[in-house]
Amino acid sequence: MTGLVSLVGAGPGDPELLTLRAVGRLREADLVLYDALVNPASLQHAPRARRAFVGKRAGRPSIAQGTIERLMIRAARKGERVVRLKSGDPFVFGRGGEEALALAAAGVPCEVVPGVSAAVAGPALSGIPVTHRGLASAFLVVSGHAESAYEPALDSLAPDSATVVVLMGLSSRAPIAHRLLARGWPPTTPAAVILGAATPEAHTWRGPLADLGHCALPAGEAPGLLVIGAAVEVAARLEALSQSQPQLATGV
Amino acid sequence: MTGLVSLVGAGPGDPELLTLRAVGRLREADLVLYDALVNPASLQHAPRARRAFVGKRAGRPSIAQGTIERLMIRAARKGERVVRLKSGDPFVFGRGGEEALALAAAGVPCEVVPGVSAAVAGPALSGIPVTHRGLASAFLVVSGHAESAYEPALDSLAPDSATVVVLMGLSSRAPIAHRLLARGWPPTTPAAVILGAATPEAHTWRGPLADLGHCALPAGEAPGLLVIGAAVEVAARLEALSQSQPQLATGV
Repeated sequence: MTGLVSLVGAGPGDPELLTLRAVGRLREADLVLYDALVNPASLQHAPRARRAFVGKRAGRPSIAQGTIERLMIRAARKGERVVRLKSGDPFVFGRGGEEALALAAAGVPCEVVPGVSAAVAGPALSGIPVTHRGLASAFLVVSGHAESAYEPALDSLAPDSATVVVLMGLSSRAPIAHRLLARGWPPTTPAAVILGAATPEAHTWRGPLADLGHCALPAGEAPGLLVIGAAVEVAARLEALSQSQPQLATGV
Repeated sequence: MTGLVSLVGAGPGDPELLTLRAVGRLREADLVLYDALVNPASLQHAPRARRAFVGKRAGRPSIAQGTIERLMIRAARKGERVVRLKSGDPFVFGRGGEEALALAAAGVPCEVVPGVSAAVAGPALSGIPVTHRGLASAFLVVSGHAESAYEPALDSLAPDSATVVVLMGLSSRAPIAHRLLARGWPPTTPAAVILGAATPEAHTWRGPLADLGHCALPAGEAPGLLVIGAAVEVAARLEALSQSQPQLATGV
């Protein structure tokens, strides 16, 4: 009897943004393999599972992808129910596709449980809709991790034709801002940096694209995402409207 | 005492893809205003709320956006807890930003509860990761509803530089395929049409971009999304690997 591997999205950080199916899979799990950005509070739903941290941490060697896949395959072949818990959605920069292929090649049943992606929820919880009538009718999501990854899309996309969301974008905000300005995006284009989205320590900087590359940010190791485009302006409008009343409750 | 309006994402259709916070807000709700694509099973979490369908249905006049906003404001001013339940995520083509602005202008507290967007989950549940190492390092989400909305992004984006996801794309698949081919996307680019994503009636067509505009699809009124790009190939690989064993369980 073969088990099952569930590739589960844990959402953007807030444990209340887990889905009902994610909670159900955690409850039944024999083994949970979780990543660095997964909120440890999510693991409370898996009281009977063995838990293994398999994420990357600054300054330490990370577990090889092949090792993670072998751990999952071995457990499933013993009939165990395995949850591979990933921050956000498993198929948005989560290597979920690679793991699904490795499991399929090994003949191990696998399912995907989509999660709330920080690409949309991060901006939303800062009052920024990635689409907004009259301001943005499309959005592009890239990773700031490697220039070769974001360059072809960012260099071609027409200025103002989509909201640009950059995940893991903190260290590349200067080259990304430079690239967009060179492409013809107006320096006044509204931009934002969101640190620690969907956590109690969430912090948002907002300003023009011209300042994005060198804005001052609080020190820390929180992951950061960038949002660039006219829809960022909605957050400013919401803030102005809320000035005489409680701030827009963001649910975090 | 003023109430609270929660703009809540119901996820892509499967009621198990509701978040814990969405369920909590439904449980406490006095009034739920829900859209056409929201699975009615989601409403079981709101046993004590008044429920009002405010979505669009083919052939019938839909409730004006202003009326929806007035209903929310009036209820919140009476101290009620209102849930505005939207398919997918409230800030992805959901007019959530407009409603947040209207509520803020009226001095009504409002929060956003992000949901699982069909833009990512629809492809995922058909075995298509919107990003995949070596195949796609970015994704663009547009709505197929109006040509003016998708044209600037699709006409500029370099071929193969991102996975393209078109929500509400069924009726515009011919002009969209034509536009991408004219922009230089190879006719062999893998493409997919996903009908009724995250429902028991889900149906996927896969084939080359050259065939996307005129492929035969089952009749019906299920909403459809398009996916175009190399990452669509992952679904074909998964299918080939799974041929001698149970199909990739997709959790729906």
